[in-house]
Amino acid sequence: MKQSKLFTKTSKNVPTDEVAKNAQLLIQAGFVDKLMAGTYSFLPLGLRVFKKIENIIRQEMENLGANEILMPTLQPKENWQITGRWDGLDNLFRFVSYYSKIDYALGATHEEIVVPLVKKFVFSYKDLPTATFQIQNKFRDEKRAKSGILRGREFFMKDLYSFHATSEDLDFYYEKATKAYEKIFQRAGVGEQTYFTYASGGTFSKYSHEFQTVCEAGEDLIYICEKCRIAINEEIIEDLNHQCPKCENTDLRKEKAVETGNIFKLMTKYSKPFELKFKNQNGEENEVIMGCYGIGLNRLMGVAVELFHDDKGIIWPESIAPFAVHLIDLDQNEQAEKIYAELFDAGIEVLWDDREVRAGEKFADSDLIGIPYRVVISKKSLEAGGVELKKRSEQASEIIAIKDLISLLKK
Amino acid sequence: MKQSKLFTKTSKNVPTDEVAKNAQLLIQAGFVDKLMAGTYSFLPLGLRVFKKIENIIRQEMENLGANEILMPTLQPKENWQITGRWDGLDNLFRFVSYYSKIDYALGATHEEIVVPLVKKFVFSYKDLPTATFQIQNKFRDEKRAKSGILRGREFFMKDLYSFHATSEDLDFYYEKATKAYEKIFQRAGVGEQTYFTYASGGTFSKYSHEFQTVCEAGEDLIYICEKCRIAINEEIIEDLNHQCPKCENTDLRKEKAVETGNIFKLMTKYSKPFELKFKNQNGEENEVIMGCYGIGLNRLMGVAVELFHDDKGIIWPESIAPFAVHLIDLDQNEQAEKIYAELFDAGIEVLWDDREVRAGEKFADSDLIGIPYRVVISKKSLEAGGVELKKRSEQASEIIAIKDLISLLKK
Repeated sequence: MKQSKLFTKTSKNVPTDEVAKNAQLLIQAGFVDKLMAGTYSFLPLGLRVFKKIENIIRQEMENLGANEILMPTLQPKENWQITGRWDGLDNLFRFVSYYSKIDYALGATHEEIVVPLVKKFVFSYKDLPTATFQIQNKFRDEKRAKSGILRGREFFMKDLYSFHATSEDLDFYYEKATKAYEKIFQRAGVGEQTYFTYASGGTFSKYSHEFQTVCEAGEDLIYICEKCRIAINEEIIEDLNHQCPKCENTDLRKEKAVETGNIFKLMTKYSKPFELKFKNQNGEENEVIMGCYGIGLNRLMGVAVELFHDDKGIIWPESIAPFAVHLIDLDQNEQAEKIYAELFDAGIEVLWDDREVRAGEKFADSDLIGIPYRVVISKKSLEAGGVELKKRSEQASEIIAIKDLISLLKK
Repeated sequence: MKQSKLFTKTSKNVPTDEVAKNAQLLIQAGFVDKLMAGTYSFLPLGLRVFKKIENIIRQEMENLGANEILMPTLQPKENWQITGRWDGLDNLFRFVSYYSKIDYALGATHEEIVVPLVKKFVFSYKDLPTATFQIQNKFRDEKRAKSGILRGREFFMKDLYSFHATSEDLDFYYEKATKAYEKIFQRAGVGEQTYFTYASGGTFSKYSHEFQTVCEAGEDLIYICEKCRIAINEEIIEDLNHQCPKCENTDLRKEKAVETGNIFKLMTKYSKPFELKFKNQNGEENEVIMGCYGIGLNRLMGVAVELFHDDKGIIWPESIAPFAVHLIDLDQNEQAEKIYAELFDAGIEVLWDDREVRAGEKFADSDLIGIPYRVVISKKSLEAGGVELKKRSEQASEIIAIKDLISLLKK
């Protein structure tokens, strides 16, 4: 993509109404725009990052054998009354529509929709297990919204729901889903900072589990056991006497963290009120056992920015960067277009800064935007034998012959 | 994909609460589910069709040089007051949030959001022209919702907005956008039935234009001039004295139609209230000239079903079909898996009916779902020399040697 064709621009000014680093950098670099507190637009660069994250998640969900669907945002009051969450769920957006006079909730989560939906198709143990997921914007009427894209009133989630005949089968799937989550965080570049975390289980299980990504901007506190590479959420650490539930280690490290994912064994919490039942091998009716598994796309993007930036800007992990290469043409060289075309043909995503602006501005923008590889072509670089290649995460640069560039970047 | 892994099932019963043929067939065949009036979930098969349509539209928008973004659903009252549409737009969903006490509209269209957004980046004639689009669910508080997925309270739109220094430049882009729209309808398989239609222009232009797809379920009436291959919307046919505005032909054919797309020259209607201005070559400030261009994804899907079905079910156009091939294995043949793998490796999308159900049920489901090519493998077909290939749109079938199948389908 030619940078001159991008309608957004970077800004020299730190937004005055944002305290969160992720929002400051994402707005300055032109990835997102703040419409109002807790509500952001994804701009072209931001949408590219969003889609990279979305595709990683989608692939891992498909590997779990889950069917993708897309449920509505508008949800009827009746469904939420059946589970007792119309009045019971914190921060549920609800309203009466002006013209059609219908009581609606805006989708905050979709158990109330997916359970009656699955009930239309699941009758027998032969229909189980099954799982379905969606990737969609969700809504929560937060009283305050101040952590940038880490906690919005409108935000994107992947929500997966699994359905089982037995709790053993749920346990088996839950284990597989945990592995899929670990893979997602690794692939998105935040695996090292992300911990499988024990949290309060609610009515039906001893624990639920979260994925917490260690990060200064986090609103949660976790206690890490490095031996087991797990963590415990602050809310249950007292109950556990400050001990790791796996190895009884008491030498735990306290860290701020962001909840980037969560998984629950719902058991029959939602199948019971909606009477989602199946006939077992003996023809007896039982309630379906459920699990649910969430992951926040905005949070994953925001936490990556919190973790990977310096004074000059963002340093994207390669797997979720908006482009692989930032090609910077300093002297309107004819060869820039040729390199751009060759990179494109080689399937390497490249943003070509073809603008007629000062070199200093191009470099500053490149550092702010944070594309992993910077390739500079200039009279000087050509005299030195080619183009200058530099990783955003490193200081050193080297001169590469143009003919060697693609094979080097393909590695 | 293996059909046994699909959590949805077809239904023998026509839904009793749907009068629209598109909704009846899409629900029976398991493409969509009705949550409540005007609000549908896309199920796995339906989401595949949706994504095919989405990709066609996205490609044509990118060919127009437009940048993709994603704006919020939650929108602040203030923006809608600036344009006078808070109280002025028919069927705008609006409410006060319970916890955060904020007046919100739900996105019905995004001029109120995109204009202030673009204002942050456009300052000079050098920044123009530019264009941006999104593909997103929209909301309209319709008093009645009865045409299946043709008119929902929640539905998906692609909305493109273009920004220009002069009205001549808008005219030029409008022409290009018109061609892109024609290409979208052709590629989606409804080009032949879709007419560029003159409609009322509102304050700023003589006409606006719609794309109307002729279809019995349509709520609009259009008058077609076959000489010019254009149509006139009923609302302005009187003003035109029942004449084609291009050739003055009065021999017009009246048809029911569905508005699948619309394009408007907005001129300065929204740039004026938001003071979206640019400096021209002489340093003078002028208001930016705008165009907007909508297309309904649900409508395109619904109208394709209305146009292409028979007594047995849907007959999808190849370009938007959920799969290219429906592989039906009647006798649990070992070769079915091999064919499935070979088709998959050849990049041909295939739904493999691997279920242990009667042949009659498999055939009935296949006709209902409407995948363009049906490949049956059975003892009988193998004895006859291979597999039986049949197009959903044709009666005749033929026996093909397995080794010839891929090259035949690839044609």
